[in-house]
Amino acid sequence: MAMQTEAKERLLGAAIDLVRRQGYNTTTVADICQEAKVTKGSFFHHFPTKDELAVRAIHRWHSFTEQFFAEAPYQQIQDPLQWIFGYLELRESLIHGELPNWTCFCGTLIQETYQSHPEFQEACAAAVLAHLEPIAANLKLAKQNHCPTADWDSESVAIFFQTALQGGFIMSKLVGSPEPAKESIYHLRAYIKSLFPSVDSPLSDQDSKHIP
Amino acid sequence: MAMQTEAKERLLGAAIDLVRRQGYNTTTVADICQEAKVTKGSFFHHFPTKDELAVRAIHRWHSFTEQFFAEAPYQQIQDPLQWIFGYLELRESLIHGELPNWTCFCGTLIQETYQSHPEFQEACAAAVLAHLEPIAANLKLAKQNHCPTADWDSESVAIFFQTALQGGFIMSKLVGSPEPAKESIYHLRAYIKSLFPSVDSPLSDQDSKHIP
Repeated sequence: MAMQTEAKERLLGAAIDLVRRQGYNTTTVADICQEAKVTKGSFFHHFPTKDELAVRAIHRWHSFTEQFFAEAPYQQIQDPLQWIFGYLELRESLIHGELPNWTCFCGTLIQETYQSHPEFQEACAAAVLAHLEPIAANLKLAKQNHCPTADWDSESVAIFFQTALQGGFIMSKLVGSPEPAKESIYHLRAYIKSLFPSVDSPLSDQDSKHIP
Repeated sequence: MAMQTEAKERLLGAAIDLVRRQGYNTTTVADICQEAKVTKGSFFHHFPTKDELAVRAIHRWHSFTEQFFAEAPYQQIQDPLQWIFGYLELRESLIHGELPNWTCFCGTLIQETYQSHPEFQEACAAAVLAHLEPIAANLKLAKQNHCPTADWDSESVAIFFQTALQGGFIMSKLVGSPEPAKESIYHLRAYIKSLFPSVDSPLSDQDSKHIP
């Protein structure tokens, strides 16, 4: 029983890794089994189809990222605006090494399956939007603290966080370097600062990281 | 001879359409031939492989987008900063109707092929970076005019334009709506305004388009 659970987890992890490296449609059940070191018999014991595995992998990605961010040190920051900057600092720190290790499973999956697999779209949207909820909540609190009459919308700005991250991943894939993804977070941070013009940021030293 | 050229163009156009709808790896030569209403014999008369067609399609996309933007009315705007806002206004106006019609061929292609096809990466990067050159040049001129000592880099900000667009496309695919892509341009415009704090924007009425 323990070994079966392990095989299932390995299949989910292998699917996530392979999609991040090469996309969904080109990834076969045989690829996933080979990567997970699991037999096809074991695959079909756990999942009726590749598509069903993918939906479970989205749920797995959702719970993995949820736990990862829930346990990160920036969660201890009490001030909502500094919490936001702490989140961005963590996101930036994740961008290093090989591209498949820090690009997004959901973003890569959905880029090619948004029309063919509405069940992927639904599960990926749920994962991404759940991730954005605390960002929107902290932006809203920070706005109440610093600029309650400003005309921007916290939820729309939170979505733009994910927009900048996803776009940075594509631009990094395009030029084969982590720089655009890092620069994207630099610009996102600068934009957030511009939304709080009355706040002196204690993070200005971080700007020197920016490579023009 | 005229008909042969037409078939070649139809194959390139069909490949671009299909990749925007469903990605690259799942698109077969048979799919492209069916979409283009061309025989397989004709396909292989023009292109030795699907990969070779794709490289030509990237070049086709590059020259198509180059011509489209070169002929757009905002090119007549003399002031560099207003040229930038004119560019963004055009980008926003393109976001309507079915997702495959306004999302990016290169961004969709590269999301799944960045490791397997370095020749796609090279051609897509060339197309996207060429598109960003006049944006960087106008940002640089506007900076010289309005805030020559500001510490941001024109080329990095120009790359962030494309980052915001590509990320907006992914987020729109994720939620099945054009809103995130439109919102992305709203936030990008607000960020650009924040980089030119001394300029009163004549475009402030446009902000009311923003749906919170």
